[in-house]
Amino acid sequence: MTGPGISQRDVEDVLTGYGDLVRELIARVVRRPSGNPWLDDLVADYPQRPGKALRPAIMFAACQALGGTAEDCVTAAVSIELLHNAFLVHDDVEDDSELRRGSPTLHRLHGMPLAVNAGDGLALLALEPMVHDARLSHRLVRLLSEEFVTMAHRTIDGQATELGWRQDARLSVTPDDYLEMIGRKSCWYTTIYPLRAGAIIATRSNSRLGELSRFGYLLGAAFQIRDDLLDLLGSVEQFGKQPYGDLREGKRTLMLIHLLRSAPPSDRAWLVDYLSRPRADRTDAEVSTLLGMMNSAGSIEFAIEYGRGIGAAAYEAFEAAFRSVPASSHRAFLGGLVGYMLERNV
Amino acid sequence: MTGPGISQRDVEDVLTGYGDLVRELIARVVRRPSGNPWLDDLVADYPQRPGKALRPAIMFAACQALGGTAEDCVTAAVSIELLHNAFLVHDDVEDDSELRRGSPTLHRLHGMPLAVNAGDGLALLALEPMVHDARLSHRLVRLLSEEFVTMAHRTIDGQATELGWRQDARLSVTPDDYLEMIGRKSCWYTTIYPLRAGAIIATRSNSRLGELSRFGYLLGAAFQIRDDLLDLLGSVEQFGKQPYGDLREGKRTLMLIHLLRSAPPSDRAWLVDYLSRPRADRTDAEVSTLLGMMNSAGSIEFAIEYGRGIGAAAYEAFEAAFRSVPASSHRAFLGGLVGYMLERNV
Repeated sequence: MTGPGISQRDVEDVLTGYGDLVRELIARVVRRPSGNPWLDDLVADYPQRPGKALRPAIMFAACQALGGTAEDCVTAAVSIELLHNAFLVHDDVEDDSELRRGSPTLHRLHGMPLAVNAGDGLALLALEPMVHDARLSHRLVRLLSEEFVTMAHRTIDGQATELGWRQDARLSVTPDDYLEMIGRKSCWYTTIYPLRAGAIIATRSNSRLGELSRFGYLLGAAFQIRDDLLDLLGSVEQFGKQPYGDLREGKRTLMLIHLLRSAPPSDRAWLVDYLSRPRADRTDAEVSTLLGMMNSAGSIEFAIEYGRGIGAAAYEAFEAAFRSVPASSHRAFLGGLVGYMLERNV
Repeated sequence: MTGPGISQRDVEDVLTGYGDLVRELIARVVRRPSGNPWLDDLVADYPQRPGKALRPAIMFAACQALGGTAEDCVTAAVSIELLHNAFLVHDDVEDDSELRRGSPTLHRLHGMPLAVNAGDGLALLALEPMVHDARLSHRLVRLLSEEFVTMAHRTIDGQATELGWRQDARLSVTPDDYLEMIGRKSCWYTTIYPLRAGAIIATRSNSRLGELSRFGYLLGAAFQIRDDLLDLLGSVEQFGKQPYGDLREGKRTLMLIHLLRSAPPSDRAWLVDYLSRPRADRTDAEVSTLLGMMNSAGSIEFAIEYGRGIGAAAYEAFEAAFRSVPASSHRAFLGGLVGYMLERNV
């Protein structure tokens, strides 16, 4: 399922390379001599922890596959990675998560007030390098800013839906609702925007991005489905956060949605009670029970199969979007990402 | 102390007029048919509560005093008011405040996770109308975006310092430290940016804004000193939030700084203990004791006098910045704001 001419190992090597580059670029932005001890260190923390740098890598590859240069992409790539880190900081506060990328979350280290403020700092710093980038024309900065605010708003819109489902203990969520929600919450900022921004920088235009956006949506959905699965399959060492966090939070994943729709009545009554209680009242034993139910009901297998279907559609969408794009390592990397999204273990 | 040709009543009438206009403009931005119940209502809440709309009013007046039109200012004015509301939402979360503009704070109404997310929504929505405004050239949008991110970053920087002082129970803060901190936390987004953005829109240039920025800094400092005083003088009916919130939080105001530097040793020992404890451990009786100490030590009178000195300097800075600007109602309003900042009761 990794595209022709590129192995999963190759995809991972490209990601590692971009990851090192982006951390170095971000270090220049966030390490200021001004020295506010209650802001600078907090803003610099998450971006310096080991991460996949998936979003900048997609933007760099899309831009270069379509004839642009990596140099023109630098500030936009830094921008999306900083915004991603801003979302992670606030996500961790909202979920009261304990670990992120193998270390305690920012609010566990510095308290909630300073963490919320640092997340704001990351979100607003995100745009700074791009609007000051002398390589980019006024028109291009404006096009990218328009894309950026649209993307950010959809992400926050999707995040509100996911938080709302949990807060209201919503039970009637369908796989279609899930796909629609992650389309907003994850796909826009993880895959759609990086592809679109890369194309806009390469072509100086935001027209005819429909097929690229469709590829981005399906690629992002494959990413998110795998992300949810990794919560059940991964370990702290491998994934950098506590496994089963989603189960404890009652996050509406494909697995939970499947289980809610297929569980026998007695299990369903147990589930309704479990999901109606606050997170702190859910025990380790209950989390194990929930995982056992998912295994028995075939919910994990359901999500894996669902992800494979999305992956196949993503690969077709890639072929459609890149039909007339000449072969290059960048094009091959983007095609290879489909298999990576389905099979990755980090 | 209200400038020549304008009474405090006139200043308040102008503010009321801009307030109604800005609430109507914002309603068009935040009331979307998309209808996410966990985002739209939350984003629309604070901007629709009664507020002073001080920041848009300053921007409209500066732009028109310098020869620009109100129409060119509309989206930038909406933008700063939305950002202000974003800061209020996150401020209230960070301080766990109970009331804002006379009603429960957003996180008390909807829970912390959805409130943090809605604050993010307000901050990122803020830029949307401006980047899409067809009246503004690409170059002007870029100039304004550069100003916007600079201003937002300084605000968050100042906020980090204030939160850090409290979190670390810092005792050695001086009036100069306070002025420097509010210069970042309050003045940039309340007065300096609105004046600068109004001037940039009117003149299509960001050069020669030094005198205007100095006026903005002093005007904003007068505003913040009065804001801190109103916490001691105001009531819920009048001010829309619980009085003495700053005392309970241990906020480093001029009054507390003065008291820490002038209290007799026994009072100082009591203060050090009070400030070292978490907010929840401070009783109503202790808050009354603290207020009594400030009265006895002349700390409130000190802050009022300090504010008057800042106000006099602000008025001189106004005269310098507007020396060659022709007389108009807009110019008179800006000069009149100095007295308003010192005397306002809301």
